[in-house]
Amino acid sequence: MFDLIAFDADDTLWHNETLFQATAREFAALLSGPHPPEWIQERLFATEMKNLRHFGYGIKGFMLSMIETAIDLTEGRVTGAQIRTILDWGHAMLQAPIALLDGVGETVAALAGAHRLMLLTKGDLFDQESKLARSGLGEHFGAVEIVSEKTARTYATIMGRHKVEPARFLMVGNSLRSDILPVLEAGGAAIHIPYATTWVHEQVPAEAMTGRTFSTLDSIRALPAWLERTGQR
Amino acid sequence: MFDLIAFDADDTLWHNETLFQATAREFAALLSGPHPPEWIQERLFATEMKNLRHFGYGIKGFMLSMIETAIDLTEGRVTGAQIRTILDWGHAMLQAPIALLDGVGETVAALAGAHRLMLLTKGDLFDQESKLARSGLGEHFGAVEIVSEKTARTYATIMGRHKVEPARFLMVGNSLRSDILPVLEAGGAAIHIPYATTWVHEQVPAEAMTGRTFSTLDSIRALPAWLERTGQR
Repeated sequence: MFDLIAFDADDTLWHNETLFQATAREFAALLSGPHPPEWIQERLFATEMKNLRHFGYGIKGFMLSMIETAIDLTEGRVTGAQIRTILDWGHAMLQAPIALLDGVGETVAALAGAHRLMLLTKGDLFDQESKLARSGLGEHFGAVEIVSEKTARTYATIMGRHKVEPARFLMVGNSLRSDILPVLEAGGAAIHIPYATTWVHEQVPAEAMTGRTFSTLDSIRALPAWLERTGQR
Repeated sequence: MFDLIAFDADDTLWHNETLFQATAREFAALLSGPHPPEWIQERLFATEMKNLRHFGYGIKGFMLSMIETAIDLTEGRVTGAQIRTILDWGHAMLQAPIALLDGVGETVAALAGAHRLMLLTKGDLFDQESKLARSGLGEHFGAVEIVSEKTARTYATIMGRHKVEPARFLMVGNSLRSDILPVLEAGGAAIHIPYATTWVHEQVPAEAMTGRTFSTLDSIRALPAWLERTGQR
């Protein structure tokens, strides 16, 4: 049924957003005082969005956005010690152990025996390669594509490069905005496995999903049975 | 003679290292006082090398290393205004116009008519895609590969992926360490076009080049004639 099954990485195979959110909460606590923590986190998010087109995704850009927000919110009175704390958080994030989501290890290993699997993730090339290496999942993926943004055009290019008909391409991921909508637009199939929490930037309004056909599973563990049902249809 | 000609980007197609060096000099001036500028630049380089395995290459990592060095050298007394100046330099670097090296525009356009060309660069995915887009050269390259490190294994993987025999792969670049030695080791051919200045990290000892066969050109303008001579041999 499918010639290639592509998996998103962050929050599909391993935990990621929780790490960013935990650091953002520590950041709000570091700068708290006159400002409520929620407002500090909103300001950080606004700085991230402003910087996205210059920095792209990833931890290094997040570190720089925290530093910039700290200078702004303190009107330049942030201390060297506080900036060092932010740098230390970033280093800790870059070296954090990779925590696979429940069922990922077994399921990916089992699927790799019968299907061509690809890792298809957006973000910082260096971060993502490092995470894949630390995840121990590398051997299961015949191809790895790390892209700066996931648009319908990105998917079409990748389908072409790997000589897969759109209808025989399946994408599995947690982000409606990056893993589902653009794949459907490019003529592929998609499975949504929601993660516990979604970065505001990846959220889409409910009306954007109207008339779209894709499946939702509550765990990657349900994917082999879904593939079997789909193949028998 | 060659089925695929791959070009390095930074300091081969467009100026790059001069931008980093100019910013490093401004950084040394910003923090000067008790310390001589050369010593400040050495400390910055040491911080960059320490961080390389966590950050990879690129402007965002350079910004973070400048900030860390500033905190270290001032023993935490760096001001928010100084950190903001460093962030501003980084933003300026990320948006700097792409200055092609002499002869690049015409030569690449002319070669693209008769050869399969690839852009093959290491560094930050987002930075490099942005630079290629701004360079106006994108249409000439049938393939673009952005990698986190250029080793013999990287080149072998890319030759395999693009179905090119090593002996029919030619790499053109300015770095002996990244563009020449690993390509020769992977069985390919290489042309060295030295750039005015070389980042210390990319320098190799003279003895590493002993017994290696590759050509050196003083400008990309000499490449078409070199290819013609080689094809007639």
